[in-house]
Amino acid sequence: MATTETTTDQGTLLSRRDLRFLLHDWLDVAALAEREAFAGQSAELYDEVLALAERLAVERFAPHNRAADEHEPHVDQDGRVVLVEGVREALAAYAEAGFGGLALPEEVGGMNLPTTISQAALAWQQAANVGTAAYPMIATAAANLLLATGSEEQIATWVPPIAEGRFAGTMCLSETQAGSSLGDIATRAEPQADGSFRLFGSKMWISGGEHELTENIVHLVLAKLPDAPAGTKGISLSLVPRFLLEDGGSIGERNDVALVGLNHKMGWRGTVNTVLAFGEGGQRPGGAPGAVGWIVGEPGQGLAGMFHMMNEARIGVGLGAVALGSTGYRKALRYARERPQGRPLGAKDPAAPQSPIVEHPDVRRMLLAQKSYVEGGLGLLMYCAKLVDDERSLDDAEARARARLLLEVLTPIAKSWPSQWCLEANALAIQVHGGYGYTRDYEVEQHYRDNRLNPIHEGTHGIQALDLLGRKVTMQRGAGLALLAETIGATVARARHEGGEAAQLADALAGTLERLLEVTGILWGDGPAGAEVALANATAYLEAAGHLVVAWIWLEQWLATAGREGDFHDGKRQAARYYFRHELPRTGPQLDLLAARDRTMLETRDAWLD
Amino acid sequence: MATTETTTDQGTLLSRRDLRFLLHDWLDVAALAEREAFAGQSAELYDEVLALAERLAVERFAPHNRAADEHEPHVDQDGRVVLVEGVREALAAYAEAGFGGLALPEEVGGMNLPTTISQAALAWQQAANVGTAAYPMIATAAANLLLATGSEEQIATWVPPIAEGRFAGTMCLSETQAGSSLGDIATRAEPQADGSFRLFGSKMWISGGEHELTENIVHLVLAKLPDAPAGTKGISLSLVPRFLLEDGGSIGERNDVALVGLNHKMGWRGTVNTVLAFGEGGQRPGGAPGAVGWIVGEPGQGLAGMFHMMNEARIGVGLGAVALGSTGYRKALRYARERPQGRPLGAKDPAAPQSPIVEHPDVRRMLLAQKSYVEGGLGLLMYCAKLVDDERSLDDAEARARARLLLEVLTPIAKSWPSQWCLEANALAIQVHGGYGYTRDYEVEQHYRDNRLNPIHEGTHGIQALDLLGRKVTMQRGAGLALLAETIGATVARARHEGGEAAQLADALAGTLERLLEVTGILWGDGPAGAEVALANATAYLEAAGHLVVAWIWLEQWLATAGREGDFHDGKRQAARYYFRHELPRTGPQLDLLAARDRTMLETRDAWLD
Repeated sequence: MATTETTTDQGTLLSRRDLRFLLHDWLDVAALAEREAFAGQSAELYDEVLALAERLAVERFAPHNRAADEHEPHVDQDGRVVLVEGVREALAAYAEAGFGGLALPEEVGGMNLPTTISQAALAWQQAANVGTAAYPMIATAAANLLLATGSEEQIATWVPPIAEGRFAGTMCLSETQAGSSLGDIATRAEPQADGSFRLFGSKMWISGGEHELTENIVHLVLAKLPDAPAGTKGISLSLVPRFLLEDGGSIGERNDVALVGLNHKMGWRGTVNTVLAFGEGGQRPGGAPGAVGWIVGEPGQGLAGMFHMMNEARIGVGLGAVALGSTGYRKALRYARERPQGRPLGAKDPAAPQSPIVEHPDVRRMLLAQKSYVEGGLGLLMYCAKLVDDERSLDDAEARARARLLLEVLTPIAKSWPSQWCLEANALAIQVHGGYGYTRDYEVEQHYRDNRLNPIHEGTHGIQALDLLGRKVTMQRGAGLALLAETIGATVARARHEGGEAAQLADALAGTLERLLEVTGILWGDGPAGAEVALANATAYLEAAGHLVVAWIWLEQWLATAGREGDFHDGKRQAARYYFRHELPRTGPQLDLLAARDRTMLETRDAWLD
Repeated sequence: MATTETTTDQGTLLSRRDLRFLLHDWLDVAALAEREAFAGQSAELYDEVLALAERLAVERFAPHNRAADEHEPHVDQDGRVVLVEGVREALAAYAEAGFGGLALPEEVGGMNLPTTISQAALAWQQAANVGTAAYPMIATAAANLLLATGSEEQIATWVPPIAEGRFAGTMCLSETQAGSSLGDIATRAEPQADGSFRLFGSKMWISGGEHELTENIVHLVLAKLPDAPAGTKGISLSLVPRFLLEDGGSIGERNDVALVGLNHKMGWRGTVNTVLAFGEGGQRPGGAPGAVGWIVGEPGQGLAGMFHMMNEARIGVGLGAVALGSTGYRKALRYARERPQGRPLGAKDPAAPQSPIVEHPDVRRMLLAQKSYVEGGLGLLMYCAKLVDDERSLDDAEARARARLLLEVLTPIAKSWPSQWCLEANALAIQVHGGYGYTRDYEVEQHYRDNRLNPIHEGTHGIQALDLLGRKVTMQRGAGLALLAETIGATVARARHEGGEAAQLADALAGTLERLLEVTGILWGDGPAGAEVALANATAYLEAAGHLVVAWIWLEQWLATAGREGDFHDGKRQAARYYFRHELPRTGPQLDLLAARDRTMLETRDAWLD
C-alpha cells in the first residue's frame, strides 16, 4: 500500500517561481509601490510578505488540512461548534503576522498593501487549506463592505477588530426558499425607537456562521424592512453581531442569533457551514424580541452594497479554485516524476527498467493541461487584483473608471473559469495518480471534492453566465465589452509587433475575439426584446468568453517571457502553445451555436424530459 | 435543512420506458428469442426478468447504498471483512432469483438468457447500488472466462457454484509496481508434480478480494511460470481459490491467500478493495508452501485469456457509468420539477409565486445534456450487448465474425465514453441541485464520487485511447474501423431515405465520419514508423470517435421513433437534436488537432513543467 504523503512539503502548493514571474516580470508590482496610495512600500516588502504567507501556509495551514476533512465540524453537548485542532492556531499565527488587515487601510489597523499582494498571499493559504483560509477571507470581505457602505461609527466599531483577527464575519444572503433568487428572502428587520433594528428570519449556507475561533462574529445580513417593496428593491443590508458590545467595545450579551444546524458537505469541510435563526429566541432580558442589528448604508440598497462584497467573494472563489488546482498539479507532477510504469513506445526490451510516467505523452498532456489551467487562472486572478489596485491608486480619474469597468466585465469570468477548469485540473491530477489518486492515501481526491463547490457558491455557473451576457456585456451600451476588446487588442498589437510565433498566437486570439464580438451583435441584435433567445445559451457564451480571456492572459505571459531563456520560460511558452492549440479552439463550436441563435432549450417541454 | 431523500423511490434509477424502447422498439429483442441459441424464450420472459431486476434493485440494492458509502468495509479483530447490513441479503435475493447465472449456459446451471437482457438487468442493480452490484458482476465475468478458456474439469468444478451465487470471483491483475503495465508483474506460479501450481506474490486493487458473502472466492490470477520470458508473453492465467475443495466439492482447507490491507477510496466504497498476498504464509500443513492454484488455458497465454474477462469488465464499467448517470439524472429531474426558485425572464411581478427551476433554460440545458449522455450511453451499451449475442447466436459464420469485430472496435469507446460523459452527467445533477447537491443530504454527490472511478479502473482513459487508435483501428488492416464506418453508413442511408430532419442529422454524422476516416489516414500515413506522432494525441482521437459513435446511436434512436408520437418520442427526438447541435460539434477542433499531427506533447520537456 502506498505511503501517505507528507502534506507540508514545500513546492507542492503554489509555484513560488511562477508567482514571482506574474507579479514582478509581468504585472510589475514594484511600480505599484511608487504610487501615492502605497507610499513607503517596496517590492522587497511585498516579497517578504509573500515569503511569510508561504511559511504560514506550509507550517500552519497545510498540516491540518486532511484532518479537517476527515473530522468535519460538529456541535458538542453545550451547543458549541467543534473544529479540529490546528485551525485556531493557524488563524492565531495569521492574525499575529498582521494578515487580517493586509489590504485594509492603516486607519483601521491594516497594512494598506496592494490587493495584488494580499490576494497572492491568500492563494498560499487557500492552496494549503481552503477550509481554514475561508474564515479570514470572509472577514476581510465583510470589513471591505463596511468600509464601502458603513457609517463612520460602524467602521470604527467593527472593522479594527476584524483587521486584528479578533472578530470574524459572514455573508448572510440565502434562505431555504431563496438561494439564487434573493428577491424572495423573507428575513425581516424591524425598526426600533433607538435607531437599531430587530431581525427575524433564518439564513441558509452561512459559512463560518458559528464557531469559537474569534471573540465575535459580524454577520452582514440581507433583510427586508416593513412595507419594503417585493423583489430585490426591498432588500436592506444589516449588521448583526453574534455578541453585542458593551460601551468601550468589550464583549457583552449574546445576541439572538442561534445555530439551527450544520450542513454536511462532500468537501470543503473545514469551513463550518451553518443554518442560522435570527430572533427566534423570544423575549430578550431587558429588550424587545429579535436579533439586534443596524442597517448598513441606505435602506433598500442592500443588494447593491452586498454586491460589493459578493464581487470580492467571487474573485476569492476564483482564486481558491486556482489554488486548489495548483496544489493538485504540483502533487501530480511530483508523482509523475517518481512513479515508474511502462516503457517508451517501441522499446524492445521488456526487462529494461520502467520509465517514470511523466515520459508518456498522455501523462504529459494531462500535466500540461493542468499547468495551462492553473497558471492561466492565476494570471487572470492576479490581473483582476491589480485592477482593484488601479481603481484605487491611479492618478487619473478616467483610468480609474476604466479599471473598475474592466473588473466588472471580468468578474464573472474570474469566478467561473477557474471553478470549471481548475476543477478539471484536479480531475486530471487524480487521473495522473491512477488508482492511487482515487484513494484517500493521496490528497488529490480531497482537492477535487473541495473544488467541486466553486461552480456553486457565490453565484452558480449559470448565474455568472447571466451576469456576463445579460448585464456586463450590455451595461453602458456595451462599454465594458468594448473596453475588454480594446485591452485585448492592445496585447494583440504588441504580439504582432514582436512577430514570429507571438504574432501567430495573436492572430488566433484576434480571430476569436472578432467572432465573439460578432456573435454578441447577433445575440443582442433585437435589443432587449430578443433577450430570451440571447440568454438561452448564456453558459456557452460565458465559457467561450472565459476561454478567450485566458488565451489573452497566456499571450500576455508569453510576451512577458520575451528575451528570457531557460526551462522556466520555455515551459511558459510551451504551456501557451498547448493552450492555443488544444484549448482555444473549443470556443469555435460554442460561438457557432450562439451565432445560430439556437432555440433548443426554449423549445424543450418539461414532459419531454422523462 | 432539507429532508433526506428516500432512496427507494421507483422511477429514480433507470427509465423503465426508455429501456423498453431500446430493447423492443429499437433492438427488437423479441427476434432474439426466435434464434436457436435462445430456443424456448420469449419477449415476455425478458420483460419478466427485467421487472424482477427492477424490484431487486429497488427493494434490495438501493436501501443500503448510502450506508455502504458512510460505513466502508473494515476488518474486524478476527481478520474478517465486515460490510454493512443489506449486502448479504441483497445478494442472497439476487442468487435466489437465479440472477447469478442469467446469461450463463444451462449446462452449468445458468438461464442462458441473451447478454442484452442480462446487461439490462445488471444496469438496474448498478443504478441502485454500484458497490453491491460489483460482486456478482465480477463473478459472472470470472465464470465466462473459465467457460472460454478453462478445462472441462475446471468448468464443472468452479462455474456452477458461481451461477448459483455460492462462489464469488475476482480478477487479480495489478501489482503495486505494475498497474497499467502488466508485463511487469512479479507473481510466480511454480509447477508441482501433481500438475497443480504454487503461487507467490502480491496483488493490488483487487475488488471483492476478501469477504464473507459467499462460501468461496475464485481468484483468477495473472502470474509468471519459472523461466517465462520477460514482458506480456510470459504471463499465464491461474485459478486460485480462497478455500480448497474436498473431493465432492465441499469447502476444505483455507488456501494461502491472505488479506494484507484495504484501500480507502473516494467513492464506490461498497465494493471492498483489497491488497492480497499469495503464498506468504510459509509451509502449509501437509504440503509445499505457496497458494495452491491451477493454470487456466495455455501457459504464456494468460493475457489473451484475461482480455476476454477484461473486455466483459470494460463493458460492465461503461454500463455502471451509465447507470450512475441515469439515477443522478432522474433525481435531478425530480428536484428541478419540485424546487421553486426565481421567475421567467421578464416576469413583472416579484411577488408572484416562484417557478420550478425546470423552467429556466440553463437548468433545461443541464437536464437535456444529462438525458443525451445517459440515454445515448445506454443505447451504446445495449447495442454492444446485442453484438455479444449476435456473435454467439447468428447462423452465419461471417455475420458472427463481423459482430465480434465491431464489438472489438467499440469496446474502448463503450468503456471510456460513459466514464467521461456520465460522470459529467453526475456533475450536472449536482449543479441542478445547487448547494443542496453538494451536501450529503442528497444522493447525487455520492453518484459523482462513485462514478469518478470509472475513467480509472479496467484500463484508464489513456489506455483505452491507445487500445482504440493503436490496436483496434489498425488491426486486420483497418477492417474494424471500416466495418464501423460501413455500419454507421447504413444508418446514414436509412436516415437520408427518411428525409427531413433525419436526413439533416445524417449529413452532419456522415461529415464527421468522413473527417474521422480522413484523419485516421493522416495519422497512420507513415505506417508503424509514424506511431509516435499518431499516438501522441490518442486521447483526442478516442474522445472524438466516442462522440461520433454516440451521435450515430442517437440517429438510430431517432429512426426508431419514426411514426411514433407523444411526449416520450418527442423527448427522444429533442435529446437527439440537442446532441447533434451541442455535442457533436465538439469533435471538430479535436479532429483538426489530430489532422495537424500536433507534436506539443512530444516536444515538451520534463523540466519545462515546473
